[in-house]
Amino acid sequence: MAEPQRPSDLEDEATVSSAAPADPEAASTENPYGLQEELQREIEQAIDDSRLEEVDRLASGLHSADMADLLERLHPDDRQTVVEVIRPALQSDAQFLTYLNPDIREDVVEQLDPEELARALTGLDSDDAFTVIEELDEDVREAVLNAMPTIARRWIEEGLNYPEYSAGRLMQREFIAVPMFWTVGKTIDFLRTAEDLPDEFYDVFVIDPRYRPTGDIKISKILRSKRSVRLADLVEEEIRSVPAAMDQEEVAFLFRQYDLTSAAVVDADGRLIGVVTVDDVVDVIDEEAEDDLFKMGGVREGDLYHDVMETSRARFAWLGVNLVTAVVASSVIAMFEGTIQQIVALAVLMPIVASMGGNAGTQTLTVAVRAIAMKELSGHNARRVMWKEVLVGSINGVLFAVIAGAVAALWFQDILLGLVIGSAMIVTLIIAGLSGTIIPLALDRFKVDPAVASGVFLTTVTDVVGFFAFLGLAAWVLL
Amino acid sequence: MAEPQRPSDLEDEATVSSAAPADPEAASTENPYGLQEELQREIEQAIDDSRLEEVDRLASGLHSADMADLLERLHPDDRQTVVEVIRPALQSDAQFLTYLNPDIREDVVEQLDPEELARALTGLDSDDAFTVIEELDEDVREAVLNAMPTIARRWIEEGLNYPEYSAGRLMQREFIAVPMFWTVGKTIDFLRTAEDLPDEFYDVFVIDPRYRPTGDIKISKILRSKRSVRLADLVEEEIRSVPAAMDQEEVAFLFRQYDLTSAAVVDADGRLIGVVTVDDVVDVIDEEAEDDLFKMGGVREGDLYHDVMETSRARFAWLGVNLVTAVVASSVIAMFEGTIQQIVALAVLMPIVASMGGNAGTQTLTVAVRAIAMKELSGHNARRVMWKEVLVGSINGVLFAVIAGAVAALWFQDILLGLVIGSAMIVTLIIAGLSGTIIPLALDRFKVDPAVASGVFLTTVTDVVGFFAFLGLAAWVLL
Repeated sequence: MAEPQRPSDLEDEATVSSAAPADPEAASTENPYGLQEELQREIEQAIDDSRLEEVDRLASGLHSADMADLLERLHPDDRQTVVEVIRPALQSDAQFLTYLNPDIREDVVEQLDPEELARALTGLDSDDAFTVIEELDEDVREAVLNAMPTIARRWIEEGLNYPEYSAGRLMQREFIAVPMFWTVGKTIDFLRTAEDLPDEFYDVFVIDPRYRPTGDIKISKILRSKRSVRLADLVEEEIRSVPAAMDQEEVAFLFRQYDLTSAAVVDADGRLIGVVTVDDVVDVIDEEAEDDLFKMGGVREGDLYHDVMETSRARFAWLGVNLVTAVVASSVIAMFEGTIQQIVALAVLMPIVASMGGNAGTQTLTVAVRAIAMKELSGHNARRVMWKEVLVGSINGVLFAVIAGAVAALWFQDILLGLVIGSAMIVTLIIAGLSGTIIPLALDRFKVDPAVASGVFLTTVTDVVGFFAFLGLAAWVLL
Repeated sequence: MAEPQRPSDLEDEATVSSAAPADPEAASTENPYGLQEELQREIEQAIDDSRLEEVDRLASGLHSADMADLLERLHPDDRQTVVEVIRPALQSDAQFLTYLNPDIREDVVEQLDPEELARALTGLDSDDAFTVIEELDEDVREAVLNAMPTIARRWIEEGLNYPEYSAGRLMQREFIAVPMFWTVGKTIDFLRTAEDLPDEFYDVFVIDPRYRPTGDIKISKILRSKRSVRLADLVEEEIRSVPAAMDQEEVAFLFRQYDLTSAAVVDADGRLIGVVTVDDVVDVIDEEAEDDLFKMGGVREGDLYHDVMETSRARFAWLGVNLVTAVVASSVIAMFEGTIQQIVALAVLMPIVASMGGNAGTQTLTVAVRAIAMKELSGHNARRVMWKEVLVGSINGVLFAVIAGAVAALWFQDILLGLVIGSAMIVTLIIAGLSGTIIPLALDRFKVDPAVASGVFLTTVTDVVGFFAFLGLAAWVLL
């Protein structure tokens, strides 16, 4: 990816300080890279004093990624100012747009006119231009595309035809493909003369006459071989090409599994149409990881950058579902109002059983959801894992039965009460372990994302079981 | 990283099926790569029938990463059998060891004798050999190291001196470093003749006479330039070198932020001693993401592969902490035993308030923890985010106050009770949003990992506030 070649005070001193740290331990804690807060403050100060040339000087020293962070962190008004300042340089360096959080990018783009944006994007690799354009509103997108050169435009329109989150939307259209019968020498000569190659590439793909990839060669291999060597002697036949429609999660798995730096993307007829590079996959891996974390936490992607209303709306749904499950749990308690009236201690202790169940279940659930995403848990080992969870639940169930039982017995001077909470604890933790495995596996079987829905089902089960076991036993034993 | 060159029935057919999918949509759902379950079953069958040569044939066709998955999925006894079968080929291909989950690897290694392991590891890149050796028990490690060639041995011993999870432990010692005054031609000639270079490399590092990296050149640039071109004209001066002691999380940030494929690792004097490559960083990114997910879920890394006792022990601690917080919450309820005795409905409804608070807080917490890890939340925008969370809490608080209030009022035919639960809901959700931001920020300030401890503190706060607000208001208004 194209990096700005401007010298940078920030980076220079950063590099020095990190290249020769006073003491290595210190270096591991300090963070010499990324946007430094001092610089951000300097820029904010310069904006307040409306010393715009100073803002320009400081900002233009930033790497695109740091520039993006700056814009994300600044107050919306300051952001506008900075964009106005760097606007003239946009055409020569719009890379930072690709690093921006989509919500912030939308604001920035609104500030530019379509022709300006089109010119800026034309300078980027096709996949980077695509990243920006695919997020634009229909009308803006049209205007931008109309202002772009034909090929770039065709590439992007083709990309938009592939499903969201597919390899077709990740791929870059610039790549190196050569016939098998070439030599290293011929290939090198070709690379030295050819026009509009990608800024950076890691593999040379070997194609057959029908433009199907039949192998790839790491360029370090080419670099190390004599000119006379035939590509056929270097080629890695076992090529793992990616159908353009393949989901990006699958693509990430592929790169992760086989340590790829780039992969050939093929159309439905198996013809080479693009390449996915590892830097894009790193972003995908981050997204997918954040996705699972957020889904389990009941929030949506981009939450941090959404405004108050949008965030409230997005979170409302999840809380609504939770309210329903909470009411279900309460109705279980309601069944035992009479019992509670006679032994108020039950009201005091019942949350303990339920919350232990919820936490034990969440532990299992977390492991299961991650394992399913990493393809480490499925039909083949489900039974073994479930059985293990039952045993773990039993062991911790017994241990906490003793502890909680003792606490309750001492607190309320009632041994029977201790026995009741203890037995309830055992039942609840076993069920928690079991449902922590079964629920995500079942959802996955029915093609529902386990990360989203599992938590709700789980807490419903653990609450219901927890309250029912405890209050039920109490009603039976203590009355 | 070295991939086995053997032909593979599995991979071939996989490639075909993916290179020309019947219909592209289908291709996105099916998964042509990775260890196929049919193959696993075939192998398990062959083991049962003790057709070992068949096992060998099937297993030897696997890519190292798939072989690792196979061993992870197999029953321990079957795993032993497979290891025995592939044992003779170990020396020529031990790569799969690096892909194994550490716990499984320990079992496999126990099956081999040190000399055998040493020979096998000598064939790997230094970073891969290191990965395996750093996990070995003291005594085994000694024996293996003694059986290794001197240089490899020295490299590994040096690596072990760097802190855990530091760049020094990730780096590979094979790299390309050339002086600035060389030309492209001289560099290529050097690469063609030089011995023991890395299997694969992406950058050529330019060093000064004191062996300090002063720049790097993407090899694709070298490949595209005429022999006469001077490296000085290609070099990227703005090099981001990594101190060997830098934490791997910082390294991952660096690669992610600047789209690096490899980075120079320098010692305390700034001398080039190794290189970290993107494939290792991808693993780090996965680890860190899993780490945060697991910490928030209260489980330890490798949980899936730990035996029952180990898993129970690991999870016990977290549940123990939770028991304490649950008891704290209960003691709040105990303060209102009298009130509950008179109005049992309170016992029925109180879990609703607490659980809504817990979930709302977790939503905020999830966003905050991730944002801190991604360097998107810190002092600079803390106040803004907190303020936003208070507003979000108020808005959803009011909405759910109305809903829950209505439910309670209708359920127990008591308007006042509805008002009480409603007001408690508002208070709780605001506090939840606030503490969901403050707690992780505070922990981070005190250098405690927010992902681990935040959850416990949060639920304690939300439970206490939830119960106190609801029962307190009830006692005040309804009695």
